[in-house]
Amino acid sequence: MHLISYDIENDRLRLRLAKLLIRAGLYRVQYSVFMGDIRETVWKRLYADLHKIAVSSDWQPTDSILILPLHQYTVDQREVIGQAVVDWDEMTGKLHTLML
Amino acid sequence: MHLISYDIENDRLRLRLAKLLIRAGLYRVQYSVFMGDIRETVWKRLYADLHKIAVSSDWQPTDSILILPLHQYTVDQREVIGQAVVDWDEMTGKLHTLML
Repeated sequence: MHLISYDIENDRLRLRLAKLLIRAGLYRVQYSVFMGDIRETVWKRLYADLHKIAVSSDWQPTDSILILPLHQYTVDQREVIGQAVVDWDEMTGKLHTLML
Repeated sequence: MHLISYDIENDRLRLRLAKLLIRAGLYRVQYSVFMGDIRETVWKRLYADLHKIAVSSDWQPTDSILILPLHQYTVDQREVIGQAVVDWDEMTGKLHTLML
């Protein structure tokens, strides 16, 4: 499980990044925070794409992308106050496992 | 180490939350993403304050606060593309330990 969050000023570049993350199978947990399990092959391409974003002409010096590999402990101990933004069971694959 | 991120629509409430997190000793890693070590006593009060935010009249149904306790693995394996938003050694207390 990974968490990827970003501060990107340019609207177009922000949208491009969000689309990349969704296409890689990540879930939008908050507006600029994505989480999910990424397969190794998908991850290699995504990782390269993230670095391409950072050398685009729309990238600002104050922009940043944070990538955190999460431990199971973090997923189990998470807390969300307010809107349950995603189906955590679906995101963590538990529901899928149960249905097999 | 904790990560706290938020989606809050109301400017005033967002500012109030950011101030709470900074006062609790967290570092602003991105605009709406904070990280840091929180002492147990501070944490209890912060936790209560976060829930107070969520029952304020400015809180919107689509607002959310995400709280993730992080494992050391996550801190060690982090990656930041772009601006080095915080001094990670300072945040994780390594520098402080070295200087003692």
